[in-house]
Amino acid sequence: MQCAANIEAREVEEMYINIDPIQAAGRLTPEAQKAVMAYSDGYSVCDNCLKPFRLDYIKKPPLADFHSECAEWLGMEQLRVVPGARRGFQAVASTFVEKGDPVILTALSHYTEFVSVEQSGGIPCEIPADENQHITGENASQKIEEVVEKYGKVPSLLYVEHADYQYGNIHDIRGVAKAAHQYDIPVLLNGAYTVGTMPVNGKELGVDFIVGSGHKSMAAPAPSGVVATTDEYAEKVFRTTKVKGDVTGRTFGIKEVELMGCSLMGVTMVGLTASFPAVKKRVENWDTEIKHSRMFADTLLSIEGTKCMSDTPREHTLTRVNTIESFDKVAETHKKRGYFLSGELKKKGITGVIPGSTKVWKYNTYGLTQKQTEYLSNAFIEVAENNGLNVN
Amino acid sequence: MQCAANIEAREVEEMYINIDPIQAAGRLTPEAQKAVMAYSDGYSVCDNCLKPFRLDYIKKPPLADFHSECAEWLGMEQLRVVPGARRGFQAVASTFVEKGDPVILTALSHYTEFVSVEQSGGIPCEIPADENQHITGENASQKIEEVVEKYGKVPSLLYVEHADYQYGNIHDIRGVAKAAHQYDIPVLLNGAYTVGTMPVNGKELGVDFIVGSGHKSMAAPAPSGVVATTDEYAEKVFRTTKVKGDVTGRTFGIKEVELMGCSLMGVTMVGLTASFPAVKKRVENWDTEIKHSRMFADTLLSIEGTKCMSDTPREHTLTRVNTIESFDKVAETHKKRGYFLSGELKKKGITGVIPGSTKVWKYNTYGLTQKQTEYLSNAFIEVAENNGLNVN
Repeated sequence: MQCAANIEAREVEEMYINIDPIQAAGRLTPEAQKAVMAYSDGYSVCDNCLKPFRLDYIKKPPLADFHSECAEWLGMEQLRVVPGARRGFQAVASTFVEKGDPVILTALSHYTEFVSVEQSGGIPCEIPADENQHITGENASQKIEEVVEKYGKVPSLLYVEHADYQYGNIHDIRGVAKAAHQYDIPVLLNGAYTVGTMPVNGKELGVDFIVGSGHKSMAAPAPSGVVATTDEYAEKVFRTTKVKGDVTGRTFGIKEVELMGCSLMGVTMVGLTASFPAVKKRVENWDTEIKHSRMFADTLLSIEGTKCMSDTPREHTLTRVNTIESFDKVAETHKKRGYFLSGELKKKGITGVIPGSTKVWKYNTYGLTQKQTEYLSNAFIEVAENNGLNVN
Repeated sequence: MQCAANIEAREVEEMYINIDPIQAAGRLTPEAQKAVMAYSDGYSVCDNCLKPFRLDYIKKPPLADFHSECAEWLGMEQLRVVPGARRGFQAVASTFVEKGDPVILTALSHYTEFVSVEQSGGIPCEIPADENQHITGENASQKIEEVVEKYGKVPSLLYVEHADYQYGNIHDIRGVAKAAHQYDIPVLLNGAYTVGTMPVNGKELGVDFIVGSGHKSMAAPAPSGVVATTDEYAEKVFRTTKVKGDVTGRTFGIKEVELMGCSLMGVTMVGLTASFPAVKKRVENWDTEIKHSRMFADTLLSIEGTKCMSDTPREHTLTRVNTIESFDKVAETHKKRGYFLSGELKKKGITGVIPGSTKVWKYNTYGLTQKQTEYLSNAFIEVAENNGLNVN
């Protein structure tokens, strides 16, 4: 069998309004698409790699600038790139977490956070969400106390999601960080849904690490991401190699152990860099994104039986809805069952709703224009009305 | 400062014959370049990700096929993708190596092998190269004995390079694996310079793991790579997550801990897949690659004072030469010093020799046509003659 023969050109972003919850803020900018074509070869960014031979020192293309500017933009002192946010979690976890250590994360943490704790041998302990699906300083404080009591030691790390993947709610990062710092626990902010979409400042939030996702929210190819931190913690997480060949006496310069040396090259690195000016600019339009998110949420709520499970009014573009009493009622008797919804939407040029989903599902309006948001809203109203649902 | 404004289109592969030692076998195939354009967005390969929600199960694009076909092609039973060969080393090392364990690698190991040992807390111990810069079964055996004596325990892992990055010599993998297996030490083959360029069969070589590099030798974008192994070892290295949320009771399906869940997406994954049929085909032309490598090495050796530090006749396309008594003699008095060589070559449309290098340097003829090899050879002769060197 010849794999390549079966790769069809993807048309999702050209032909549809895509409201896929994880794809919306990752689609490439035109600048990144152009850079991707020119730098598609593996080591393309390494043509001008000079001493001390490390990615973040390369001046052409301007990778050194990207590193320092992105750190500053996030209100942090140092930044490195990683092949996906998960590899940022891994680098931090393997620096701080010893086998058997309790590690705090939350009831809304992403699986990659859990896996990074598991990979480092830690024991994941969740801060419960409150009745509004929020992670609060108070709950963090209480959980830390319980964990200290149970394990007889202070947790070695705390993860908290800026906006979580389940509801897209914005959490009380300052409160959680304050609680953690009372026990000297380093705080890692999972900014996978916020770094690159809304303003994020680590100093203001009081966190020690910010991990962002290039392919989720920084308009970069996959896998890519960033880890930013303070000078103090950089010394630990970005420690340089110290080993020596016992026969040859070789040493390995300033390669960083937890990053495995240079962590990105080529298309992922250049895409992240090429999109960065546009990304910096777009976070300033977050208000407009919120306006569109609210507009569409209001539309869905006007369809009788529909509930918004995320905060309302919306403070993020990622949203979880419950349509058990609306679209799922239709699905019960529709000859296409649950597939009618994604099917009718697709005919209207809308994609990103998981085929078959009519109960609880998520969408993301990030990046839609006013006109696209209106079109999207009207399309859902039409599908509702055509299938006998009341619209208020 | 606006980073993106400073990204110049890269023209290396379009305008030059590129003999860069690490870039030659990584340049994209036309199939991969096309796929890169269509799948440049981050989660583009995830459009049709269905239960059990893991990269290697995706049928469209044909990622599941890639995984099984590539494993078979390497003479192994299972295969996963990773963001670079280094992440393959890391996955294997963190499975087998406990803090303080001695780990065997070689006097010709790449820095990423050392760093993966350091990251897992192991102690790197080098098998010495013999006088011909070869890693032999005999030296492996002796080193293992010494290490067992010194540390009072059997090394937990052994790395060996199929073709090393320094000389491009092909090593005695069967002999080394046999030595390791006498102590039940798992053997990891670093195939960064061979998987995707020459035939590699893990079963025939007797190794337990093969790690390959997508962006170095499989014509794929960076960072990408593969780890292949047997069913027996797959259970360990590809172990699935077992943790559970203590509050929510959540578990995380069949995500693999050492891979951090899905390890590639989008452009890197699709590039690897798209190039694969061409890569499978091109390894069958290894004889032709060797013919060209020898042709060019012979040309260089005809320039008086030039020495080939790699095996001759060449058995690989990556080659290390010593031109201290030829081109470096010219550099001593040339007004452009060592830069004359790369400069004159560049005028002739040849790139990849580090600017300023005239002493000991490396090149890679991989992928050049007969005509390009002849052109390259003539260009070096001309540069030599124009600068007063004798050519035999």
